[in-house]
Amino acid sequence: MPRPITFKPGEKVCLADIDPRKIDGDWDKESAAERMEQNAERTRDLAYRLYAENRRSVLLVLQGMDTAGKDGTIRAVMHSVSPQSCQVTPFKAPSNLELDHDFLWRIHQAVPRRGNIGIFNRSHYEDVLVVRVHNLVPKEEWRSRYERINEFEQMLTEGSVTIVKCMLHVSKEEQRERLQKRLDNPNKRWKFSKGDLAERKLWDDYQEAYEAALAHCNTKHAPWHVIPADRKWYRNLVVSELLRSTLEELDPQFPPSESGLDDITVV
Amino acid sequence: MPRPITFKPGEKVCLADIDPRKIDGDWDKESAAERMEQNAERTRDLAYRLYAENRRSVLLVLQGMDTAGKDGTIRAVMHSVSPQSCQVTPFKAPSNLELDHDFLWRIHQAVPRRGNIGIFNRSHYEDVLVVRVHNLVPKEEWRSRYERINEFEQMLTEGSVTIVKCMLHVSKEEQRERLQKRLDNPNKRWKFSKGDLAERKLWDDYQEAYEAALAHCNTKHAPWHVIPADRKWYRNLVVSELLRSTLEELDPQFPPSESGLDDITVV
Repeated sequence: MPRPITFKPGEKVCLADIDPRKIDGDWDKESAAERMEQNAERTRDLAYRLYAENRRSVLLVLQGMDTAGKDGTIRAVMHSVSPQSCQVTPFKAPSNLELDHDFLWRIHQAVPRRGNIGIFNRSHYEDVLVVRVHNLVPKEEWRSRYERINEFEQMLTEGSVTIVKCMLHVSKEEQRERLQKRLDNPNKRWKFSKGDLAERKLWDDYQEAYEAALAHCNTKHAPWHVIPADRKWYRNLVVSELLRSTLEELDPQFPPSESGLDDITVV
Repeated sequence: MPRPITFKPGEKVCLADIDPRKIDGDWDKESAAERMEQNAERTRDLAYRLYAENRRSVLLVLQGMDTAGKDGTIRAVMHSVSPQSCQVTPFKAPSNLELDHDFLWRIHQAVPRRGNIGIFNRSHYEDVLVVRVHNLVPKEEWRSRYERINEFEQMLTEGSVTIVKCMLHVSKEEQRERLQKRLDNPNKRWKFSKGDLAERKLWDDYQEAYEAALAHCNTKHAPWHVIPADRKWYRNLVVSELLRSTLEELDPQFPPSESGLDDITVV
């Protein structure tokens, strides 16, 4: 099965050494589409059981450079799950109210409730990514956040949340093509902002910040997964596989029914 | 096209006169499935434009007796829409914190944000349904709620929310069969509670409470729709049709792009 790239806790990560076009085995677009269909069926069933069981939840954290495909992954991987048991939270630039609290305040409120799959489209990791690259807070402050994040995630997993963190790994050349496509396609142009080009100039700083987050916050309880993301179909396949296997490991069960129902006939 | 049953504002509603097996035209399971596929495609596109436009939102309110199929409708009608632009809020018995506020407090917090489709699985209408039937608050209090609800909904629609209220209308006999199926199917039994039978005994009181809500809160800005719901495929078809036509009327547009993008080449 196609697998994400993982590391040992504490292991140094060099993104330049990971091929964003890497493919496990001999998967192609066609066989991937077939497998995606099977995963959708299986995930639908497992998500329904998770919802019925109402004891545990799954949190899928999606990070990646601009155009890495966070929105597209959500559409492709989650379409079989009822929106009733799936909440997506996009984290944009924090509001004034959010800035008046610690950086985990708004994150904590969005943690999925029991029975649900929650998806973070960007997350608390922005507080050690964009914040670090742009020096939005002093270095002493962002430097201590890695540890705070690990503690926070440990607390969640000791409760009932299974955390799956994915970094969608695209190449700088692939980002160039995707940004250009947004400019050239009238229906996609609204997504483009000149600010995207300014961020692109900071590519190396972002890669470095990602490497730090991947190394410092790759814990046993909440490991990071790097997803080769230059090919959209393969990116979707790996994430869908990961979600499926996470749910299979949880093996959620329908809850026991009330006692004394055996002899009831509804009239 | 299959249409829900609607009324003039202020018109008296008699649910017993509405056939829960009513079918418009000569739709059958097969032609409905085909149309549902077309609606899914169209709704996917329109919901994406609504999200991109980021100016307005849609709120679908689902009410109905136990087993009327609120969960199933959500699964069937929303599966094509990315969970990123769709939030479902199930309203169960209020928590102590919620009871420490007015009845619209928890509702207001769940109103969908711009660009999104929000679904209420049960809603503020429970505060004039189960609350009325069980006398959970004094009559003077629930009696004034119809007016408070109309004012609240008007405020929302004057903002940017389009409200679509659906009452899934099942017969008492159909409910009997569905409850019995839950008892008989080991994978469905967890959904059954003896309390369901106690509620079923209050069928007539609930129908009366529904008729009052349908009459008092069927306003021009937020009309009620009664959906014949004894046949699941027809219920899904009518709601999917309603959502599609609501979005088509809104006709959401991709927002304009930034100026000065014409001569940019990404490097």
